[in-house]
Amino acid sequence: MKQLLAVDWGTSSLRGALLDSEGRVLKERSFPRGILTVASGDFATVFEACFAHWIGATGTFCLISGMAGSKQGWLEAPYCACPAGFDEVASQLAWVKAGRIAIVPGLSCEHEGIPDVMRGEETQVLGALQLLGLQDGLLILPGTHSKWVSVRGGRIEDFSTRMTGEFYALLRQHSLLARSMPDTDGEVDWAAFDEGVALALRGAGLLQTAFSVRTLSLFGRMAAARLPSYLSGLVIGEEIRARDLPGGTKVVLIGAELLTERYERALQQRQAVVQRLGAEATWRGLWTLAQTIHPSWDA
Amino acid sequence: MKQLLAVDWGTSSLRGALLDSEGRVLKERSFPRGILTVASGDFATVFEACFAHWIGATGTFCLISGMAGSKQGWLEAPYCACPAGFDEVASQLAWVKAGRIAIVPGLSCEHEGIPDVMRGEETQVLGALQLLGLQDGLLILPGTHSKWVSVRGGRIEDFSTRMTGEFYALLRQHSLLARSMPDTDGEVDWAAFDEGVALALRGAGLLQTAFSVRTLSLFGRMAAARLPSYLSGLVIGEEIRARDLPGGTKVVLIGAELLTERYERALQQRQAVVQRLGAEATWRGLWTLAQTIHPSWDA
Repeated sequence: MKQLLAVDWGTSSLRGALLDSEGRVLKERSFPRGILTVASGDFATVFEACFAHWIGATGTFCLISGMAGSKQGWLEAPYCACPAGFDEVASQLAWVKAGRIAIVPGLSCEHEGIPDVMRGEETQVLGALQLLGLQDGLLILPGTHSKWVSVRGGRIEDFSTRMTGEFYALLRQHSLLARSMPDTDGEVDWAAFDEGVALALRGAGLLQTAFSVRTLSLFGRMAAARLPSYLSGLVIGEEIRARDLPGGTKVVLIGAELLTERYERALQQRQAVVQRLGAEATWRGLWTLAQTIHPSWDA
Repeated sequence: MKQLLAVDWGTSSLRGALLDSEGRVLKERSFPRGILTVASGDFATVFEACFAHWIGATGTFCLISGMAGSKQGWLEAPYCACPAGFDEVASQLAWVKAGRIAIVPGLSCEHEGIPDVMRGEETQVLGALQLLGLQDGLLILPGTHSKWVSVRGGRIEDFSTRMTGEFYALLRQHSLLARSMPDTDGEVDWAAFDEGVALALRGAGLLQTAFSVRTLSLFGRMAAARLPSYLSGLVIGEEIRARDLPGGTKVVLIGAELLTERYERALQQRQAVVQRLGAEATWRGLWTLAQTIHPSWDA
């Protein structure tokens, strides 16, 4: 197998890594060119501007995961229904350029008539299973729209989305609560964060607990600089509250360290046992997928 | 007792009613002059521009409830601690003009170290108790920040705030979900609203259920025009979900008809028995308070 150009093209960023035949990262770069910044006909141009010099003359194979496969992306890749593992995902690639550039499909599932979807996280999860040698487990991918993913027998059996990051941003920037807080978040205040998590886990629900940001400020019980961390704890705690997690539950967290650090801390209040992974899960997922489809591209 | 000028001066609107000695409404007017539109030194000017011709030469007594008593209002009125009834509230008026114009204090309470506050709703609740001849009960005042109020022995014993209306506005206007919906809400689609309530009551939590607005749209399962009603059902349903309500629970709803109608409908899914009141609760509350303090102003 030759080199692989692994690309994670999301809503707000574009990241790429050049991997060798063993899956080792040779180079890694990130660009502020998420799909929201790219006009509908310009994906090929942006892609080439960012990565043409890595592909070179040898025709390096490229595999892309994330929102680049959505309706607003480069080429729509269908959702692959759960349960799905490497084989199901690899068999439904959307080919931008036959044998050279392919986009990984997202996944869909359904609960009581309500569909759910992901794009990009399936690749991170499949990579994490490889890195950790797991076949079964619960994985959480924190973010604007967090994903809780159940894996069984090496395949993604089920998942659900929680709009945690987006709720935080809405409350932080656009709500009445924003008036009590400084304009920018400082360092995380872990004690305030823990207080927020603890209140959320008591179960009154975010519609109610969020108002405490205002009243704690109004009565001078918490300094303004601490309130963003407290609100973050409230929102992340609410995400965890809604799911029954018996003590000792093993959870794999995948994402940016700044986020997985908060989730690990919050999950400790539920006595969960946490492992954390970052971008390496994405690269390993794309590399393993490339292996799976090897016959069709390395000819 | 002479005439009373009863005023409800809130964040976004200013409403007044002239009441006769029996508490009957003689005139009623509303102005788009909520406290957010009034500069800090201008409250007296705005008040006179709106109501001077009602007060006239006779020196009609004026009682004001709502955010006019907040730090950002005309004159700060202290919070009165729960439990509190007419006597406690009447004894803590903030006098703008001795014997002539007074502002009703808000209420505060506390749960496990977290304070809660209201301004204006205490007057509506006390008025509702008078109108309905109630001493005990559960009252809900829907709004930007909904209040759930427990009354015992004619006094407000406890209450809690839920940021339901504000969450709806944030999700409707500023979230990713807004892109799936038309720019303006049309008529309420009651079937869509009921579906939202039903999903919320199943208990996954709003962080998760809100995402269904996007996926139902993505998979063409619900028309865009129906989604605002569905989202409204999700958010109001979430408010109700978080509170244990045994079937047959009696609930008094106080507020604008457009809102109490939705809450009544949502509460029916929990088999609550609902009574609804509007502005008459405010006027009756202010009139009864004026009666309570009669000796000090009708001299």
